[in-house]
Amino acid sequence: MKNLVTGCVGFIGSNLVEYLLNKGIEVIGIDIDKSREHLLPDHKNFTMIWDSIRYLDYYHETFKGVDTIYHLAAASDIARSSINPAYDLAENVVGTHVILETMRKRNIKNMIFTSTSVVYGEDAPRPTPESGIDFDPTSQYGASKCCVESFIHAYVHVYGIKAWIFRFGNVIGRNQHRGVIYDFLNKLKVNPKELEILGDGKQIKSYVHVSDCISAMDWIPKNDGNKGVETYNLAIHDYKNVTELADILCDELGIKPKYNYTGGDRGWVGDVPIVMLDATKALSTGWKPKLNCEEAIRRTVRELSE
Amino acid sequence: MKNLVTGCVGFIGSNLVEYLLNKGIEVIGIDIDKSREHLLPDHKNFTMIWDSIRYLDYYHETFKGVDTIYHLAAASDIARSSINPAYDLAENVVGTHVILETMRKRNIKNMIFTSTSVVYGEDAPRPTPESGIDFDPTSQYGASKCCVESFIHAYVHVYGIKAWIFRFGNVIGRNQHRGVIYDFLNKLKVNPKELEILGDGKQIKSYVHVSDCISAMDWIPKNDGNKGVETYNLAIHDYKNVTELADILCDELGIKPKYNYTGGDRGWVGDVPIVMLDATKALSTGWKPKLNCEEAIRRTVRELSE
Repeated sequence: MKNLVTGCVGFIGSNLVEYLLNKGIEVIGIDIDKSREHLLPDHKNFTMIWDSIRYLDYYHETFKGVDTIYHLAAASDIARSSINPAYDLAENVVGTHVILETMRKRNIKNMIFTSTSVVYGEDAPRPTPESGIDFDPTSQYGASKCCVESFIHAYVHVYGIKAWIFRFGNVIGRNQHRGVIYDFLNKLKVNPKELEILGDGKQIKSYVHVSDCISAMDWIPKNDGNKGVETYNLAIHDYKNVTELADILCDELGIKPKYNYTGGDRGWVGDVPIVMLDATKALSTGWKPKLNCEEAIRRTVRELSE
Repeated sequence: MKNLVTGCVGFIGSNLVEYLLNKGIEVIGIDIDKSREHLLPDHKNFTMIWDSIRYLDYYHETFKGVDTIYHLAAASDIARSSINPAYDLAENVVGTHVILETMRKRNIKNMIFTSTSVVYGEDAPRPTPESGIDFDPTSQYGASKCCVESFIHAYVHVYGIKAWIFRFGNVIGRNQHRGVIYDFLNKLKVNPKELEILGDGKQIKSYVHVSDCISAMDWIPKNDGNKGVETYNLAIHDYKNVTELADILCDELGIKPKYNYTGGDRGWVGDVPIVMLDATKALSTGWKPKLNCEEAIRRTVRELSE
């Protein structure tokens, strides 16, 4: 079996590649971020393409026998996307369109796409189910993910590919290079006596460990009987606010810094203060996450501190 | 007052420009389709820009004082979009992003966008309301409109523009250069004794006259108290299948051709066989369409036969 992973040195991508190789699957990776070259696996079944997904089709000879594309490559910095709006359009929307065109032209049948809970916006009921909710993205990043999901639907209907869309909540774990835990650890390295917390600390999210996300991306497509396109929230029914997260993180580190809140109900422009996803659909396939929120946070603190 | 109309020589655009000029509004038009140059108004309050919307910002000096953009320009040929998928992406998605960026940079506050019922896909309940329905576009064209709607939401949230999204059903009327009535009239001109009907004739849609659409696009933004973004189905609660439409059309022409069906439940790849939109939200603003389905069809037959 042969899979293609876009964004293969990214946070989730690097974990996924290792997982697939360990299962004996041949993997082609594509990424553009050379600063993360150290995360490349040294494995006989791994082939690397250093390029933007926008030029994916150029390498089509390599794709013979690929049956599934895990499409993870994306500009994913929400704060930046409000300052440079065209970037998410080019990388996420145009880039994904190239991938879908490659699938169409090269007859690759399955796409597994990592979307986001940000598509729902702020007024959705909580916990938020996958279906019956209007898209209402509050950032360019969120909008770009709505676009990609929409184009995937069209390709499923018109060209008969199969697709799984996973809307992630907050994924945390090894190789993470962004996000609240990463940010806190960096700040505490400089000064372990004080911790600046963006917003009022009351933003509530569910934190899922990357290993559970990957087990879902493997388990669900094999077990859900999808005939066209299926969309899943990937989350757990367990939530922490940012102050609680800071408490767990500091307890794991054995320190007690003073918290300084920057104030306001959100961390940055485009942030969604409360994200509670209904994961009933994913759980109904038999997928079982192993770590609750606190366990995922503690493990991530250890992994990122190594 | 000064408005900008993209797609100003298109079907709806050309009707809208005339309407706005008649109301004493200064209009800047932008379009790329020189084959429709004859539809340009000869009016002192009208300025024309012949270019793609992708280069809109180049003309920003012209936009001083523009408060509203009617964004109608789009690749809108569903059948063609399945053959050349990248076209809708470039023209509709990238093009609209340029417009939104122009609004952000030039401080233009209001956008009125013509979307489509095609965003809903085929499994939506009927009549289909605007809210609580998953996007499930069955064509590249539909997907591109989902993208644009998503980016509009992000711009409303992040940059504070106001937007009205109108999802049209089948709009018909003067200056139409595509669609079932146009197609039938052309075929009957060649041979008034036979009429080829794509599909099985059972596709059901609501046909709204362009004059009623334009009255909605004028009335609703002034009367709905929108604080950010509002989405409306523009349709009437009156439906005809394609055979009924052919009957009305032929009756209006005074001919009785033999119908030849090409078969299948849809006219082309990406067609949605049954479209019934719930227009309750639009009607609740006080908007009153003047023509029912049959009247709209008869008037369009007369207008296109002139």
